[in-house]
Amino acid sequence: MYRTHTCGELRMEHVGQQVTLAGWVQVIRKISANLSFVDLRDRYGLTQLVIGDQLLTKFSEQPLGREFVIQVKGVVRERSNKNPEMATGDIEIVLDDYTILNGSKVPPISIMDNSNDSDELRMKYRYLDLRRNAIKQNLELRYRVGREARNYLHTQGFMDIETPFLIKSTPEGARDFVVPSRMNPNEFYALPQSPQTFKQLLMVSGYDRYYQIVKCFRDEDLRADRQPEFTQIDCEMSFVEQEDILNTFESMMKHIFREIKGIDMKDPFPRMTFDDAMEYYGNDKPDIRFEMKLVTMNETVKNKGFKVFDDAELVVAINAKGCSEYTRKQLDELTDWVKRPQIGMTGLIYVKHNTDGSLKSSVDKFFNEEQLKEWAAKTGSQPGDLILVLAGREERTRKAMSELRLEMGERLGLRDKNVYAPLWVIDFPLFEYAEAENRWVARHHPFTSPKPEQIHLMDDLSQYGNIKANAYDIVLNGTEVGGGSIRIFQRDLQEKMFAALGMSEEEAAHKFGFLLGAFEYGAPPHGGIAFGFDRLCSLLGGSESIRDFIAFPKNNSGRDVMLDAPSAIDDYQLDELYISLVKQEPA
Amino acid sequence: MYRTHTCGELRMEHVGQQVTLAGWVQVIRKISANLSFVDLRDRYGLTQLVIGDQLLTKFSEQPLGREFVIQVKGVVRERSNKNPEMATGDIEIVLDDYTILNGSKVPPISIMDNSNDSDELRMKYRYLDLRRNAIKQNLELRYRVGREARNYLHTQGFMDIETPFLIKSTPEGARDFVVPSRMNPNEFYALPQSPQTFKQLLMVSGYDRYYQIVKCFRDEDLRADRQPEFTQIDCEMSFVEQEDILNTFESMMKHIFREIKGIDMKDPFPRMTFDDAMEYYGNDKPDIRFEMKLVTMNETVKNKGFKVFDDAELVVAINAKGCSEYTRKQLDELTDWVKRPQIGMTGLIYVKHNTDGSLKSSVDKFFNEEQLKEWAAKTGSQPGDLILVLAGREERTRKAMSELRLEMGERLGLRDKNVYAPLWVIDFPLFEYAEAENRWVARHHPFTSPKPEQIHLMDDLSQYGNIKANAYDIVLNGTEVGGGSIRIFQRDLQEKMFAALGMSEEEAAHKFGFLLGAFEYGAPPHGGIAFGFDRLCSLLGGSESIRDFIAFPKNNSGRDVMLDAPSAIDDYQLDELYISLVKQEPA
Repeated sequence: MYRTHTCGELRMEHVGQQVTLAGWVQVIRKISANLSFVDLRDRYGLTQLVIGDQLLTKFSEQPLGREFVIQVKGVVRERSNKNPEMATGDIEIVLDDYTILNGSKVPPISIMDNSNDSDELRMKYRYLDLRRNAIKQNLELRYRVGREARNYLHTQGFMDIETPFLIKSTPEGARDFVVPSRMNPNEFYALPQSPQTFKQLLMVSGYDRYYQIVKCFRDEDLRADRQPEFTQIDCEMSFVEQEDILNTFESMMKHIFREIKGIDMKDPFPRMTFDDAMEYYGNDKPDIRFEMKLVTMNETVKNKGFKVFDDAELVVAINAKGCSEYTRKQLDELTDWVKRPQIGMTGLIYVKHNTDGSLKSSVDKFFNEEQLKEWAAKTGSQPGDLILVLAGREERTRKAMSELRLEMGERLGLRDKNVYAPLWVIDFPLFEYAEAENRWVARHHPFTSPKPEQIHLMDDLSQYGNIKANAYDIVLNGTEVGGGSIRIFQRDLQEKMFAALGMSEEEAAHKFGFLLGAFEYGAPPHGGIAFGFDRLCSLLGGSESIRDFIAFPKNNSGRDVMLDAPSAIDDYQLDELYISLVKQEPA
Repeated sequence: MYRTHTCGELRMEHVGQQVTLAGWVQVIRKISANLSFVDLRDRYGLTQLVIGDQLLTKFSEQPLGREFVIQVKGVVRERSNKNPEMATGDIEIVLDDYTILNGSKVPPISIMDNSNDSDELRMKYRYLDLRRNAIKQNLELRYRVGREARNYLHTQGFMDIETPFLIKSTPEGARDFVVPSRMNPNEFYALPQSPQTFKQLLMVSGYDRYYQIVKCFRDEDLRADRQPEFTQIDCEMSFVEQEDILNTFESMMKHIFREIKGIDMKDPFPRMTFDDAMEYYGNDKPDIRFEMKLVTMNETVKNKGFKVFDDAELVVAINAKGCSEYTRKQLDELTDWVKRPQIGMTGLIYVKHNTDGSLKSSVDKFFNEEQLKEWAAKTGSQPGDLILVLAGREERTRKAMSELRLEMGERLGLRDKNVYAPLWVIDFPLFEYAEAENRWVARHHPFTSPKPEQIHLMDDLSQYGNIKANAYDIVLNGTEVGGGSIRIFQRDLQEKMFAALGMSEEEAAHKFGFLLGAFEYGAPPHGGIAFGFDRLCSLLGGSESIRDFIAFPKNNSGRDVMLDAPSAIDDYQLDELYISLVKQEPA
């Protein structure tokens, strides 16, 4: 061993001991001509080294620099000037000698906690970026979350079973990454978008409770904070109903939050139907750290002669508590905010419910105070509040109001990072209509079971939009962290589902014959859930970005800029695989 | 929940309780017109169900069949005819009612323990094969081994850190699987052959102790029991020397064997140099459950007028204890055995060291008893033993004798599956000569450090064969279960290594620029090891085959016959990836 102790370990009780440490030079402080201090860093902490008289010659001949890797020998001494901020702040090491194990050029990015370096530079030098304390803490957190998830699932009888990565391409939903096979020329494997069918087969095989913390792959155009490879906590159970799954994984969340954050989450977690989530929050992953529900105003405000409202499919309001004193400037700014292309509204209407009880709106020309009182009653506004109203096409307007609600929640400080508000959203629609493809697609995936009492509606295309699934998401502070469903386990229902999605019998047999086959040999009722592990960790770490919770993430073009991957491969590799490149047309 | 208890849970203390179970019909035994027994199976065990008078009508209208999934309700009763072989053998359930949750066709393969079905059929219906008790126990064992490895590594401060799967193709050694990138047309990712460079970067980043139980990929022609995707327990440590790594992972092996097998392995594990392994066992993974060392006979037997020996590069013997009474027939059979093409020898010479002390050989024409006494002295044979001798080209003969030694060990019952003999093989050569490529290649991989005192030999091509590496394998009962090395951590030495392997500076920079770069910013001394997890599990499970320890293995053509993967993909997928297929020439 290159060391007797780590840099985070020494305390007063070690004073007088001869020790050997190894680590990185964090900082060198020259105090005088014959006295320097060095902070030595390793994974476990920082320790102050004292370089005094006896090392003066060596120190001038073999000077140290930032990020040098050194081994040091010396005696632990009580510090005269203790640093209570530092775990080892009571002591220092008076060096007898040091050895430079490896030098370092001046790092091109800062190793300090508050780095201002560009993302591109940080990613290129990721191995240096990973030295930053903040990132190290994130990866430590990730390790602990994974370990606690495993511990919990172990106590519940779940077995970690590995499923294959080289599988079959069955594009339905997202795009597959494919892998040409050399041994089977002109054929391709696909990388799994999730172990979905395998975990279902394991249920058919009788494994009863399965889990895996596993990489998944989706070749989608990357939005901020989406990665082509990501990690799921993937789980499946047999002989259960939705209620059993919600209870089991609610307990897992509680376990993780207790062990990682010391937070006792109240149970049961609240539940909300998809329909309610859309109506009252404008999206399927409500942030319920605060109320400020959406109020549909159509009946209250339409046909009163105001064309904007009369032409609108939806008029929707929120009541921003205590905001009646918003200035003209603030209101203009909010109006600009909703007019941004991302939000896409043409304007914002407001009603100030003044502290004296009077009502003052931006549409006084069209609505008198009596009418505005109806608005106040409908939205539940009180003196001191501000009613904000959007109008337009149903879908866009609801989405815009959902965004405005979150923005107002943010401005009012109602979205405290340290408050965790979990929520089950249930009763998702089975299908959703894909305008681009002009067909119904599975909202969750094609293995999701419709509500048993609605199965007969699958015979009537006009009813597709009304069929609900035994599908559920777990939402935390407005972010979906997991989702799952009770699965179809009968061959005939699964075939009906494939047919509903426009798949021919041949196509279904080609893509999913193994699953349909498995359902004929005693498939048990089963269901499961998958958590976005990267996202769960970032929420627990209080961060918006999942990238800082992934050791080696890719950028928005799917590139690893450190490796410079993907990259060209050799012609002989292409030849062996019986593929050739098609040149891209110039744009 | 579909059940109040599992099928492995009920005991005498439950007698009289109303219970609900769910599972698979294993066996139906019709006892009389109005009495049938059913064994109900789930992951946890078997429970006997009694179908009596009150269910006669239902049982004839809704008959059960093998592998049907049913839910049953009834009362626990003490059995009159207890079955001590069965955990639940004291009780049975007298059914009030049952519900068929799902039917089953007659399974095309046997679910029973001793299946005689072909591998191909078992793989096609893997979801049924996985129901077999033997396979289930293997996967449970695998889960427990993984969990114990994690538990041990946790106590030692190792952190599980995920490394990427979509990386850069840097073929050097095995062939990469590649993944065409849609977002970066004409460029490819590669799937990792191991996380080697990433774990080294994590050491550069200061993570100190890393591990991962992780899938790796090699596109090699498959021999029996090799899989294109396989799992490693991958570990790396900083500020350590070889001794520290051997101690750390020796303890891991001891932990796993204690927890999984209840076996206390003696430490320290024996160590043997590569050179000794080759000389005394004829291969680099000796099975040391028994001695029977190879004895080089050249000096004893050459130049005595026997042409076979005089022409041979190597004459090598083993002493088979207690085999002097081998019959002519047995000796002929052994001779045929060494003449098989897999072994490739032209003949076998023997000396019987008879119980009366006399010596009788198959080469009495060339060697008198006085000379044979020298053989006996050299090989250490005693009255009652049998000396077996092979002669020929060095490499083939040593290998053949290694095989013969194992065969004799097998015949003498010296290779007891329940005895575990671990061994460290150390001091591997740094390079080996690849005849096909006409160049030196890295025996372990290009990141392995030469012995520090031999670094200067890298300047002299004639010395390459003599340079030893700080590389080690852990061998168990003649099988390599893990291997690793102390790594190069200096840029100049790494560059020298790449150059020694015939890599130009440009190529080295293109493929491994990130690693060379990282070594310039304070890389610590480090080293690691990777265990073949599939293999380790199969050894712990007492099996030769890794396939039965993998939930969904591939066959020898790299195919998943259940999924029918790999398979053709759609033209639009090829178009999106800017690749096209090259038709294979007819053979």
